[in-house]
Amino acid sequence: MPTRLNHIGVVVHDIEEVAKLLGTLGMKALTRPEPDPIQKVTACFLGQEDGEGFQVELLEPTDDTSPVANFLAKKGGGLHHLCFEVDDIDSAAKGLESRGYRVVSRPVECIGYDRSFGLGEKAPTRIAFLMTSSKLLVELLQKGR
Amino acid sequence: MPTRLNHIGVVVHDIEEVAKLLGTLGMKALTRPEPDPIQKVTACFLGQEDGEGFQVELLEPTDDTSPVANFLAKKGGGLHHLCFEVDDIDSAAKGLESRGYRVVSRPVECIGYDRSFGLGEKAPTRIAFLMTSSKLLVELLQKGR
Repeated sequence: MPTRLNHIGVVVHDIEEVAKLLGTLGMKALTRPEPDPIQKVTACFLGQEDGEGFQVELLEPTDDTSPVANFLAKKGGGLHHLCFEVDDIDSAAKGLESRGYRVVSRPVECIGYDRSFGLGEKAPTRIAFLMTSSKLLVELLQKGR
Repeated sequence: MPTRLNHIGVVVHDIEEVAKLLGTLGMKALTRPEPDPIQKVTACFLGQEDGEGFQVELLEPTDDTSPVANFLAKKGGGLHHLCFEVDDIDSAAKGLESRGYRVVSRPVECIGYDRSFGLGEKAPTRIAFLMTSSKLLVELLQKGR
């Protein structure tokens, strides 16, 4: 299964505050904070100044019913998921499920990601979440076009 | 402060099991599991098959007094830290501290990393841990030579 690491998701109380702290480590904002109605999070992507390597997604819940609100309340925030980009999310999600990953949420559209990066006119970005036995939360992402 | 993302640390019950699950996502072991006496963890590094991008460090506590044993017992494992490589760890750690990071552990030698990657003959690898207000644990790493 061909994959590329797309980003590392971090749940935070305050996107602006953590973006500033990560600025000290050479990371800068690549997108504006953008809400997503399905995931109920506001997301902001940061990257390294040289444009190389990985991105970090800072996630703030938009309300108390957000899937990450509980994570923030219980754990105070922190590293949340690893996102791998795939070409065919339906096949990739089935592949992981058959190899012992637990399905957390099946593929759905992600308007926030498309708005952040100007994608999705022809086909929307779709995302799914699966978890390993060691509580490693993996997001799959098929980029919009 | 010039930095490069070195790896993402994941705490697990069983390195072999999770390495196999991440193999499904195109990741392969780059090193053998190697214990580190100071951190009290056994670490194994995985990378993407094309050699590009980031590495994942799978961490298993070597005993119940390991700094990650509590994390494993309380949370069941999962994403643990982001490691940034720096040229001067003493200056980098002071820089983060002065900008509001909490010091978790000051720079110490990391024999396990040197053994894993065949480094440290001239100077050992050194690592430190600091935390942001949003519970994002950051490791700084100055590679051995």
